[in-house]
Parts: sequence; C-alpha cells; structure tokens
Amino acid sequence: MGARGSVATTAITGLLALRAGLVRPVGCVTERLDIDHSVLPAWDDIAVGGHDIVSTPLDKRAEHLAAAGLIPHSVVSAVADGLRAVDAELRCGYHPVTHTGPQAAAVARLTRDIEDFRTRNDLARVVVVNVTSTEPPVPALPEHDDLDLLAAALEDPQRTVLPASSVGALAALTAGASYVDFTPSPGIKIPALAELAHRNRLPYAGADGKTGETLVRTVLAPMFTARALNVRSWAGTNLLGGGDGANLADPAQARGKLESKARGLARLLGDDVTAPLHIDNVATLGERKIAWDHVSFEGFLGAQMSLQFTWDGYDSALAAPLVLDLARLVSAAHADGQTGPLAALAFFFKDPLGTDEHRFAEQTRMLADWAARLGATE
Amino acid sequence: MGARGSVATTAITGLLALRAGLVRPVGCVTERLDIDHSVLPAWDDIAVGGHDIVSTPLDKRAEHLAAAGLIPHSVVSAVADGLRAVDAELRCGYHPVTHTGPQAAAVARLTRDIEDFRTRNDLARVVVVNVTSTEPPVPALPEHDDLDLLAAALEDPQRTVLPASSVGALAALTAGASYVDFTPSPGIKIPALAELAHRNRLPYAGADGKTGETLVRTVLAPMFTARALNVRSWAGTNLLGGGDGANLADPAQARGKLESKARGLARLLGDDVTAPLHIDNVATLGERKIAWDHVSFEGFLGAQMSLQFTWDGYDSALAAPLVLDLARLVSAAHADGQTGPLAALAFFFKDPLGTDEHRFAEQTRMLADWAARLGATE
Amino acid sequence: MGARGSVATTAITGLLALRAGLVRPVGCVTERLDIDHSVLPAWDDIAVGGHDIVSTPLDKRAEHLAAAGLIPHSVVSAVADGLRAVDAELRCGYHPVTHTGPQAAAVARLTRDIEDFRTRNDLARVVVVNVTSTEPPVPALPEHDDLDLLAAALEDPQRTVLPASSVGALAALTAGASYVDFTPSPGIKIPALAELAHRNRLPYAGADGKTGETLVRTVLAPMFTARALNVRSWAGTNLLGGGDGANLADPAQARGKLESKARGLARLLGDDVTAPLHIDNVATLGERKIAWDHVSFEGFLGAQMSLQFTWDGYDSALAAPLVLDLARLVSAAHADGQTGPLAALAFFFKDPLGTDEHRFAEQTRMLADWAARLGATE
Amino acid sequence: MGARGSVATTAITGLLALRAGLVRPVGCVTERLDIDHSVLPAWDDIAVGGHDIVSTPLDKRAEHLAAAGLIPHSVVSAVADGLRAVDAELRCGYHPVTHTGPQAAAVARLTRDIEDFRTRNDLARVVVVNVTSTEPPVPALPEHDDLDLLAAALEDPQRTVLPASSVGALAALTAGASYVDFTPSPGIKIPALAELAHRNRLPYAGADGKTGETLVRTVLAPMFTARALNVRSWAGTNLLGGGDGANLADPAQARGKLESKARGLARLLGDDVTAPLHIDNVATLGERKIAWDHVSFEGFLGAQMSLQFTWDGYDSALAAPLVLDLARLVSAAHADGQTGPLAALAFFFKDPLGTDEHRFAEQTRMLADWAARLGATE
Ligand SMILES: NC(=O)c1ccc[n+]([C@@H]2O[C@H](COP(=O)([O-])OP(=O)(O)OC[C@H]3O[C@@H](n4cnc5c(N)ncnc54)[C@H](O)[C@@H]3O)[C@@H](O)[C@H]2O)c1
Ligand SMILES: NC(=O)c1ccc[n+]([C@@H]2O[C@H](COP(=O)([O-])OP(=O)(O)OC[C@H]3O[C@@H](n4cnc5c(N)ncnc54)[C@H](O)[C@@H]3O)[C@@H](O)[C@H]2O)c1
Ligand SMILES: NC(=O)c1ccc[n+]([C@@H]2O[C@H](COP(=O)([O-])OP(=O)(O)OC[C@H]3O[C@@H](n4cnc5c(N)ncnc54)[C@H](O)[C@@H]3O)[C@@H](O)[C@H]2O)c1
Ligand SMILES: NC(=O)c1ccc[n+]([C@@H]2O[C@H](COP(=O)([O-])OP(=O)(O)OC[C@H]3O[C@@H](n4cnc5c(N)ncnc54)[C@H](O)[C@@H]3O)[C@@H](O)[C@H]2O)c1
Ligand code: NA
Ligand code: NA
Repeated sequence: MGARGSVATTAITGLLALRAGLVRPVGCVTERLDIDHSVLPAWDDIAVGGHDIVSTPLDKRAEHLAAAGLIPHSVVSAVADGLRAVDAELRCGYHPVTHTGPQAAAVARLTRDIEDFRTRNDLARVVVVNVTSTEPPVPALPEHDDLDLLAAALEDPQRTVLPASSVGALAALTAGASYVDFTPSPGIKIPALAELAHRNRLPYAGADGKTGETLVRTVLAPMFTARALNVRSWAGTNLLGGGDGANLADPAQARGKLESKARGLARLLGDDVTAPLHIDNVATLGERKIAWDHVSFEGFLGAQMSLQFTWDGYDSALAAPLVLDLARLVSAAHADGQTGPLAALAFFFKDPLGTDEHRFAEQTRMLADWAARLGATE
Repeated sequence: MGARGSVATTAITGLLALRAGLVRPVGCVTERLDIDHSVLPAWDDIAVGGHDIVSTPLDKRAEHLAAAGLIPHSVVSAVADGLRAVDAELRCGYHPVTHTGPQAAAVARLTRDIEDFRTRNDLARVVVVNVTSTEPPVPALPEHDDLDLLAAALEDPQRTVLPASSVGALAALTAGASYVDFTPSPGIKIPALAELAHRNRLPYAGADGKTGETLVRTVLAPMFTARALNVRSWAGTNLLGGGDGANLADPAQARGKLESKARGLARLLGDDVTAPLHIDNVATLGERKIAWDHVSFEGFLGAQMSLQFTWDGYDSALAAPLVLDLARLVSAAHADGQTGPLAALAFFFKDPLGTDEHRFAEQTRMLADWAARLGATE
Repeated sequence: MGARGSVATTAITGLLALRAGLVRPVGCVTERLDIDHSVLPAWDDIAVGGHDIVSTPLDKRAEHLAAAGLIPHSVVSAVADGLRAVDAELRCGYHPVTHTGPQAAAVARLTRDIEDFRTRNDLARVVVVNVTSTEPPVPALPEHDDLDLLAAALEDPQRTVLPASSVGALAALTAGASYVDFTPSPGIKIPALAELAHRNRLPYAGADGKTGETLVRTVLAPMFTARALNVRSWAGTNLLGGGDGANLADPAQARGKLESKARGLARLLGDDVTAPLHIDNVATLGERKIAWDHVSFEGFLGAQMSLQFTWDGYDSALAAPLVLDLARLVSAAHADGQTGPLAALAFFFKDPLGTDEHRFAEQTRMLADWAARLGATE
Repeated sequence: MGARGSVATTAITGLLALRAGLVRPVGCVTERLDIDHSVLPAWDDIAVGGHDIVSTPLDKRAEHLAAAGLIPHSVVSAVADGLRAVDAELRCGYHPVTHTGPQAAAVARLTRDIEDFRTRNDLARVVVVNVTSTEPPVPALPEHDDLDLLAAALEDPQRTVLPASSVGALAALTAGASYVDFTPSPGIKIPALAELAHRNRLPYAGADGKTGETLVRTVLAPMFTARALNVRSWAGTNLLGGGDGANLADPAQARGKLESKARGLARLLGDDVTAPLHIDNVATLGERKIAWDHVSFEGFLGAQMSLQFTWDGYDSALAAPLVLDLARLVSAAHADGQTGPLAALAFFFKDPLGTDEHRFAEQTRMLADWAARLGATE
C-alpha cells in the first residue's frame, strides 16, 4: 500500500538492483543477522505488487528520486524494465475521498487484488506493507472493538467506519496476508483487526518505521539512564521535504507522527522531561530530512550540560531496506506459524506493537535472539 | 593519586555532600544498580586519602571549581570543614622530575603512606584511583615484563624505569590495595604490574574514564552497525580548558589519550573509517569540555548521509561520580575475592582492560550482570 | 516599565557595577563608539526608576539571576545597597487585568510618577524603556489613529482601548519623556502615539531588542545576498526559559515576537524563502536561550549546500547593556532636539521603527554616522 | 593555471552552461553588481585556455564532478563539445619536480603559450588565474626582492629560485597578462613580481579565494566587535575531500592555508583569541567541505556564551563563479588602466592583497563603489 511513494519506489528499485547484483545490501539488516539464511525468502524469491491512489509510473517516480540525489541515475536506467514489470502488478488503492458505496466493497476489491496477485505469481505467502501517507488518529468507535459490529457497519454505504489504512489492513488479513505498518496511521491498531489477525493465525508488525531522529533517540536516551544523568529537556525539530513533508505540513496529519515520537521518549525517560517537537515542511530539501535535537541534562552536584545532534539523511534510503527486511522477516514468521504482534521486531519501529521496549540496544538483541530461533521449530 | 586535581576535588566534595544529604546522587551509577546494596561500601564508610605533587589546599581548589561553575558555592561552604579534614590525609606524591635516588625508595614511601592510611582509619580495604595528569606512552623495556628484573632495576639510582603512574600502581599493589586507572597513562598496563596484582590476589580496573565524546561514540557506533549502515568517516574535535586541557596541549602527553580514543572507534567500526581526532587546549573554557563529532555514512543505494553532535559538558562533573562508583565496585570485588582486570567494569572506560567489548549497551549489561552476582558467593 | 524583570534587573545591577568600577563595559556599544563622549550621559549621571506589576524586591531578583549563572554572586553582594535604593524608586505599574475605572486615570497616575521621579532626582530628561512581558498584537481601532478620539475613549470606564504597553508609552510622552520599545508589543506603534511624540517634540526608538538569533540572521543573510547565493529555506527553533520563556509559551503572546522575527528575514531575503520558526518554553534552561538555525542554499550549477548555527546565550546579559546604551543615546537625541522615530538606532532592534534597513553592517554604519553627528548642532 | 582541477573544471563547465543559457548565474557576483555592465566582458566574449601538469581530459573531469554531485549530469552532457574545444587550448604546465634546466626556460615557454593563446583567439587581454594545488610557504631569498637578481638566478640550471606558482605569475606578467591568485601559494607575493606588475602596468588580485569557513568568519567576527562582545576563543575544524583535501593532508602544504586563515581572524579580533584550526583530509566526502566553528565569548557582567556553526558546501561550486567574476573584473581593471594590487577585490579573498580590510560588509561596499567607477574614466 502506497506502492508509488518514495519509500516504496526506493525499496522496489533497490530490490531489483540487489537482484541484479548492482549494489551491496547496505542498510539491509537481514543480511547481517547471524542466522540460518535459508529461513528468509531470497531476494530472487520476492515478487512485488501493490496499491496506490496515484498513477505516476514507477520508472518516472524512480527518475524523480534520482534527480533528488536519492538513487543513482545508473541504477534507475539499469532496472527500468524491472520497474515497468512491477508497475503492471500495481492496482488502484482505496481512496477515502472519492470512494462511494459501502466500505465493504472496497475491502472486497482489495482482498481480491491480493489473492489474485498471490495466485498469478504462484506465491507461498504475501506480506502487505503499509507505506501510504500518514493519516491522523481517528476517534474510537464501538465497531472498532468488535469484528461482527464492524462487518455490519462496513456494509452501510452512508458510513465511513474505517480510515484508509485500516481498510487496507482488513483486506490483507482477509486475504490471508500478514501485515506490516510502517506508518503511525491507525492501520491494524483497530482492536477488531488485531482480533482478526489472531483468528486467521496471521502475524503482523508495526508501527511507524524508525529511521532517523527517533532511531538516534532510542540509542542516546538509554545512555543517560545508564549513567544516572538527569535529562531535563529534549527538544526536536524536523525539516523535511518530499511527499511525507507535504503531507505532514498539515497539523492534523502530523499529530499521529508527533504522538508516536513523543510516546517513545516518555517511555525511555519518564514524563517529566520538557520535550517540544516540531515537524516542518521544507519542500526545497527534496527527499532529505534534517533533524536537530537538543538535550539538556544535569550531572553530579547540579552541573548543567547539553548534547545536541543534527541528522541529515535521505529518509527513504533509510526506510527502504527496512521495508525489504520486514517483508522477509514477517514472511518467515508467517511460515513459522507465529501469530499476532511480533514484538521482536520493535527494532524497526518508533511505536512498537506488542512491547514497550524502546531501548535500541535491547531491541537489537531481541531481534537477534528471535531471528536465531526462526525456523528452529520446523 | 592526583588528589588535588579537578576530578579528585569534585569527587571528594561530592562524597562529603552526599554524606551530608545536600545533593542527590545524580551521575552515580551504583545508586541505580538493581542489586543488594549491602555489598557496596556506604558513602559513610568511605575514608579519603591521597597523593598529589602540588599543595594547593583542597578547599581552595573547590572554591576555584565553584567559580568555574562546576560546583555550587553553597555546597563548597557547607563541606569546607570536611575538605580540610581530608586535606590532612593527603601526602606528597612521587614527582618524576624532582625525585632523586632509586625509584624503589619512592615506591616504598608511597606504599607506607597507603598502609598508614589504612591503619590510621581502620579500613578493611583501600582502592587507589589514578586521577593524575595524563602521561605519554612509554617505550617498552625488558624490565616491564618481569617482576624480578623490575625490582632490581628500581634499585638503580641512575635509572627511571617506570613512569609516575606505574610507580603509584606498584605502591598500591605492594600495599595490598586494589587499583583503578582513570587515565590513559601506562599505570598498571606494565605487564609486570599485572603479574603482581595476580600474585597479590588483587583486582584492578581501567583504563581512561569514559565521560564525554567517547561515551557517545560507544553508544552511536553500534547503532550504525546494527542497522548495516556503512560509516565512512568519523571526525572529532575536543576543546577543553582546565588542568587537563593545559596538560594535553602538549602533543606528547595527548598521544596516549588520542590513541586510547582511536582504538575504541576502530574496534567498533573496523579500521577503514577515516577518523581524524583533535584535542585543543582552550583555557578560556575553564572546566568545560566541548566536543564536536561529524560522522558521514552511506545507506541503501549509496545515499550519502551524516550525523553530527556537539557535547558541552563539565568533564569533572561527569568523572567524579564514576570515581566514587569505581571505588565502591572495586572494593566490593576485592572483598569478593576477585583478582586481575575487572572486564565487567568496561562500562566506565575508553580503553577497557580485560575485554575488547566497546559497545556501551553490552557494557551496561555486563556491569548489571556482574554487580548482581557480587557477594553472591559469600 | 517592567523594572523587576530579568532584563531590567540585569541592566540596573550592571549600571551599579559599572559605576562602582567592578566590571568592564563588555557589551556596551556606546563605550566603543568613536564620538565625543560628552554628548552622552555618564554612568554616574543616570538615575533609575520604573514601574512593574510584581513586587519582588530587586535584590531578591538579582540573587535569583546570580543563582541562574547570569550575574556573579560577588557583584550582587557588592551592589545590594544600590539595588535597594533603586527599589525605593519603583512604582506600581498599570495592570491590564486588575485595573478598574477609565484607562485615562492609569495614564494620569503613571504620568505623575514619571514627573515626580524627574523632579525628585533633579533630572534634565527621562527615557522610558519598555521591558515588560511581550503582549500579543491588538486589532486596530479608529481611536488608535486619532489623538482626540483616543483621549475621549480613554475616559470611558467600560472600555479597554489601549494595551498596557501603550498605556505606558502614552504616559511617558505625556510626561515629556522619550521612549524606547525593547519589546515587540504595540507600545508606541499605535499611530496616535507617534503623532503625540511629534507634537511633544520627543524622539523614540524601537522595536524589539535584537540580541540573539535575529542578530546573527541580520549578519548572515546579507552575506548570501552579496555572494549571489540563493537561500531556499531558513528554519529556526528557539528554546528559552525565564519569565520570557514562560510568557511566550502562550502562542498568543508569541505571535508578535514571531511576526517581528519573520518580517526581518523576508525583508532581507525576499518572500520566497521557506522559513518555519518556533519558540519553545524550556523552563529548565533558566535564563539561557538556545537557538538553532538551518539555512539551505543553492550555489552555482544548482549545488545544494547548508549552513547551520547554534546560539547559546544569556538573553538578559545581551539585552541589558543595550538597554543602557539606548537610554544614553535616546537621551542625547532628546537633548539634541531630535523628534520622532530614530531610524539610526535600527542596529538595536529586530523590527526597526523609521527604517526598513535590516542589514546589520549597514545599521552599524548608520549608528556610527549618526552618533558622530550627535551634539554637533549644539 | 591548474586548468584541469575541480575549481577550474567547474568554472569552465559553468561558463559554457551560462553561455548556452542552461543555468542561471547563481553565485556570480558580477551579475548583481549595480553597474554599467558594458564595462565587463560578456560571457560570450571570454575564451578559456590554461596550463596543468596532468592530462585527464576536461570532459572526464567534469563527469567525475557530476558523479560527486557537484554538477548536474545533464549540464555536462550538454556542454561536452565545448569542454573538448577548451581542452584543445590547454597546455602542459611547469612541473616543479620533473622540470630540468634553468627555470627561465620554463618561464619563457609559459609566456609564449599565453601570447599564442591571445593571438590565436584574437583577444584584447588575458587574465591568468592561479587555481593550482596550494604550495607551502617558501623561505625568502635576496633574489625575491630584486628583479635583476631574479632574472640572473633563473638562468642558473642548478637552482630552483621560484616556486611553481611564481613561475606562472612571472610568465603571466611577462606576457602582459593580469594575474589573480586564488590560492595561498607564494605566486605574485614575491616582491620582485609585484615590482614587475608595476613596471608592466598590470593589475593583479589575491590571495586565496574566500568561499566557506573564512567567509562566514569575516561576516560574524565584525558582529561581535560591533556589539562590544569579548570573543575569547574561536576554534575551527575543516573536513574536506577532493584534490584539495588530498593535497592539504600534507601538513607542509596546509601551512600556507592555515596561516592565511589565521591572519584574517587575528586582524578582525586581535591576537588574544585562542584559535586552534585544523584541516583534515576526509576523502570519502568527495567534493564537499564541512567546517565546524565554535566561538566562545563573554558578555555583560562576565556571562559566558557561545556560537557554533557548521558549513556544508561544495567548495568548487562556491569558488567557480568567483573565478569567473575575477576574470571579468580584473580584465575590466586592466582595460581601465589600473595597476598593482586591486584592494577593492578583497571581497573575494581570505588574505587580501593591497589592504588589511577583512570585514566582509566593508569589502562588499568597497567592491560596489569600485565597480561603479569602473570605466568611468574612459
Ligand atoms: N524514513 C521514512 O521514510 C519513514 C519513516 C517512518 C514512516 N514513514 C512513513 O511512510 C509513509 C510513506 O512515506 P513516503 O516518503 O513514501 O511518502 P510519499 O508521500 O512519497 O508516498 C506515499 C504514497 O502513498 C500513496 N497513498 C496515499 N493514500 C493512499 C491510499 N489510501 N491507498 C494507497 N496509497 C495511498 C500516495 O499516493 C503516495 O504514493 C509515510 O506515512 C511516512 O510517514 C516513512
Ligand atoms: N572526564 C574527565 O575529567 C576525565 C575523563 C577521563 C580521564 N580523565 C583523566 O583524569 C586525569 C585528571 O583529570 P583532571 O581534570 O582532574 O586534571 P587536573 O590537571 O585538574 O588534575 C591532575 C592532578 O594530578 C596531579 N599530579 C600530576 N602528577 C602527579 C603525580 N606524579 N603524582 C601525584 N599527583 C600528580 C596534579 O598536580 C593535579 O592536581 C587526567 O589524566 C585526565 O586525562 C579525566
Ligand atoms: N534578549 C532579551 O532578553 C530580549 C530581547 C528582545 C526583547 N526582549 C523583551 O524584553 C521583555 C522583558 O524580558 P525579560 O526577560 O526581562 O522578561 P521578564 O518576564 O523577566 O520581565 C518582564 C517584567 O515585566 C513586568 N510586567 C509585565 N506586565 C507589566 C505591566 N503591564 N507593567 C509593568 N510591568 C509589567 C513583569 O512583572 C516582569 O517583571 C520581554 O518582552 C522580552 O520579549 C528581551
Ligand atoms: N573553494 C575552493 O575550492 C577554494 C577556495 C580557496 C582556494 N582554493 C584553492 O584553489 C586551488 C585549486 O583547488 P581545487 O579544488 O581545484 O584543487 P584540485 O586539486 O582539484 O586542482 C588543482 C589542479 O592544479 C594542477 N596543478 C598542480 N600543480 C600545478 C602546476 N605546477 N602547474 C599547473 N597545474 C598544476 C593539478 O594537476 C590539478 O589539476 C587549491 O590551491 C585550493 O586551495 C580553492
Ligand atoms: Na580492551
Ligand atoms: Na592584506
């Protein structure tokens, strides 16, 4: 979902380039895990399909990303045929504004698309990864807590019971696909969908890919704790362009993102840290994201000190290999018979489902341990 | 050793303030360890003595540090009596330039001082912590590898076989005291001294307290590794004033420090990272240390990204509580019958003795596990 | 006005310390102007009075600022008597919330206070400097454009025609005092008050003291222009504590400040620069202000580059000497017979009255030229 | 001179692109000067020749720079023919290591090359710009002070009297060409060469193009002075790759550069500022240069504050348009009959010849005034 966006296009281009041996798997965590690699789908075994609500051809998107400095021009040319082949597998997504009729019809159509994709490509399993634009949080409804109530409400052509991300998640689970939420959108966090995942014995993971400022935060915050230093404020400013920047320029859309970021910090350091946080849309930065964090802390005998950092990254170059990693790992978990939220994948997320562990080093170990056991029960 | 320096004075003032209940133990790692605290000496159980080669009274040094913003004036006034009491316990150290006669005489004098201090204060154990000015690396001598050869050579009034830090370490071990090297000086790294520690069944720990830039490095570098990102350069500049800054302004003295810092980075990231590193003496910064690090790294599909940070700290406020922690932990290890380098204390050091583990999160866990077992065998 | 705030207290303490020869006039611009210094009031010739709506004694405020690291403790002790003497000259200000009755009565009371202060201290001239808390912008009223309408409206006990800053400005002008607006509040920007200044032949200056981020901006922006580099974005984040931070935590109060900052940048670089700007209240920073700015710019052949800076200052230590400078310069202008907005003082302000010149180097020259001519006509 | 280096290749590619209307003249200062533009050579009127000691074809160098992100690939393709045409005008430079025989012969050969170039292209004037690799300072010789002594010494096949940059400068002046030193090399700073310029009635300008850290320094330092703030330390670290980085990795070569940078700061702020400065070669940064500066300063009542900045630029993208500007301006000065060092061009240089003015805003004004008078005497 969101198959024509920056993250998706980078992931697809990269997968094709990896397959063609054009690039090294820099940023791909699965490649360096110390495990039996046969439990993971090989790059060659992965077929790509997807939904989006825009129709810009993938090769055009990739060229745009090359112009923005994100992908080498030479790679885009080399995999252009492959991009066009993937393009033929993409389908029209559920559009929350233009859709008419009951939402159930949309769910059914997306479900069919996924099933057809699996059959057509003769696949053992499908993993649906949500990399659509971030949605705002939605108010809870009674129907969100009960699968039967939900099913009924979805038939009502007058109602919009689920946000787009959850429509997609519901379709994935209905089609027997596992699911990954790379965004902070409601997605699978609707309780009835989690229930469905359990019922259909499907694993899922999320939420909100951890690629920049938050990654560094989950590494640095435990340092202060381990050293018994007293963090007093942790301010952050994010400047980003691209589609994500444009979308998050809307305070309503940004709310979910800000909340997801803030939750993690509070979890790591407690609630009494002053932590203002901003996301600014700076279109001229293109696909780059700049984050500045300023941490003030107190040491022995009240000494006032500070740490500040500036992160200057290509967000999608950080996200894309993780999307590939997640597809491999969740597929392997599915094959392994695992069900429900995969807490061991907290490593990848700002707001991990199934666990409250935010410390990056702990998450790294959890991932390593879990991955080492993958397939052991087979 | 170095009992009138910034680190020592801050540690002593802080210990007195903790005992008086004037301050909270911010920065004291032992206070937050999840262990049976009865295995550690209580603040009240610790007596302080020491050596230095200058004679500025401790209360004057503490006032100087207060003027530099490192310690609150009110704390210095409140513990002034205590500082004067400790002052009475301080003795004249071994001075490498003014000393005449065989080094053995110096060792004997320092040994006697330590033994007298233990007896006078009726102490179960003594921990000698080296916080003297950093010395340059010394060329290896055959006498450094053999305790008997060393003993003989020390009797020769014409020779200077050991650097001052190792004279102190030898005295400590001879007096049956455990030893901590908070500096990158040769100290106990002379092989014959390690041999003596084993022979006398004494534990020791070091080297070079990890309080600023290196602390952050050992936290951040594993993040890049865990995410399979390719670090290409890691440049660092340190600006520091104080006695440490003045001493390290001399490139010869700074060499040990620079090497100790560089070793850690290479260990964490491999040898092919360009890593220029500077230490500049900026006297006007007083007791503050500013470090700037710039990391350039490569991500998926060759994307070039960077992370930079600025650390602005009071070095001695960071070091002092660790010195107290180390005194407690090494004393407990001594009581516990442990011998030789305490690898589990890598958490505290830039260049840990007894292990090659530089990853801070791993070190944190090693410390926690080790401390939890302390006294368990009693 | 605002005589018990951080800026005012620092300025008063500093004036007393300068007079006593305890400190050098670092930050005092008038001291380094290459002019006939007899045209300026000497430090000894300046008497201090003022209004505030809180009653914390000045010496208590000064001690608080010393604890925050802003003023040396020794200076506060040395001038404590002087502070108490100034305290006796302070009067109760106009409180916009608790005031009852017509605003005209408040104006009359403040006017009388100023006149009495002048008489009591046998002064040639009075300069009223507004360093009260920043107020939000106010909607324009017809009465703001016409002095007679305004006078009538002020008599109405039911109406609040003027914000507090303008009540103070009106009192100053009515008492024959010149006026300086160191804040972005409406103050003298109400057109009828400017009219009154002209009618009473009084000079004034403003608005919003330029002490940190904006100072640097007005220095750096002209560099890009002079070098024909194309600035594309200029993002800023300000973290501040103190009374100013608490006040500006309220978005309504912050609006005036943000607008005043943004206007300057647009004036320097044009309107097509993306320029998000934030002010965050971080109480734990105490009297310090941290500002981070990130500038992205384009060079030859489309090269994308950036400049970022972090400013870490004590706002009041930067503002206080300027307040003293302004009192001297505006008093000299008054003596010189100058009337209306003093454009030559743009050097001191974020949003200069009487000119659109924001380039700092040009402002520096304007000040030097103007000051050199001061008194020449006498 | 240095016609195949990064700066030269960028300048040449950019000139061709400007001529073809492919790009806007961002970074070209001459384009925004408010003057009669007919006094300057138009882009179309400029022919390019040059010397270098390597033979990599210009179009290959340009492609390399495009791969490094400095120039768009599309521009390089579009001007490839033009680059090959310029390539045909390039000649072999004087190589200080491989040259044999008297230096006079080298001077004669280079002189002839310049004269032939002028004749072949039917040019009114030639400006030689030195953009070769930076050379170390050379010890002064008596022959450097006297043109006749120099001429005699150059005939001696056993001696190396002049560094390569000065060989080139001598050839330029002998051929009646004006000269610009964009490097800190000795070049025209040899007194006898300045004498020759006067004798031949030729203007010249230098030294060491001001494009990054120093540019910002000459903008910021006057701000502190104007505000009477007391700068206490100004530390700088430069990380650079490219050919310049490789060359400056050699401390001997870097000395000239470091001295040129330090001189400016001392001139702006006085000698009592602690100002450590480093240049590190970080090859993986490619054509980018990162500079970090940390300024600590004291304000009113001793308040300690700091400003730090990070500059992240493409050095050659900053230098190239200035090289074009200088060619135009020095040619116009030559046409105008000006002789000797052009102090009005201090704007462009770290270590301006003919003046001690380092304040950027003053330099900007000097340039504007001077340029406005250009041609006025015709
Ligand atoms: N480092 C990262 O890039 C990163 C990290 C964490 C989370 N994320 C999240 O990943 C998501 C994608 O980021 P991006 O940079 O690719 O954004 P993008 O704007 O480039 O792409 C989003 C894509 O989703 C499509 N889309 C929107 N609504 C849809 C719908 N209802 N159905 C199907 N497709 C839909 C859009 O048309 C677009 O092609 C964002 O939500 C972002 O917040 C990204
Ligand atoms: N964060 C930190 O402060 C930190 C971190 C790691 C290591 N260190 C190291 O700790 C040491 C102390 O740092 P500091 O800031 O207190 O320095 P300092 O200069 O203030 O103190 C050093 C003291 O050692 C004394 N001394 C020197 N030679 C001696 C000798 N031979 N015998 C006895 N005393 C001697 C000096 O007189 C001085 O009082 C330095 O080597 C420093 O590199 C400090
Ligand atoms: N560098 C700087 O510090 C700087 C720069 C530019 C502008 N300013 C402005 O200067 C002002 C003062 O800053 P500060 O840090 O001293 O703030 P502060 O909060 O410490 O002081 C403000 C004082 O004004 C008083 N006050 C509020 N309303 C009043 C009224 N109606 N009449 C009289 N007194 C009143 C308050 O009681 C308080 O004592 C603020 O508006 C700030 O935005 C400061
Ligand atoms: N912003 C900037 O890029 C900047 C600013 C100030 C000064 N400079 C100076 O400009 C010079 C060029 O920088 P660059 O980045 O292009 O370096 P570069 O290494 O890419 O190019 C230098 C060129 O000079 C040639 N060369 C060396 N010795 C020569 C000789 N004796 N005769 C003729 N050619 C010779 C080399 O072969 C090379 O092609 C350097 O000295 C640099 O310090 C550059
Ligand atoms: Na080790
Ligand atoms: Na000069």
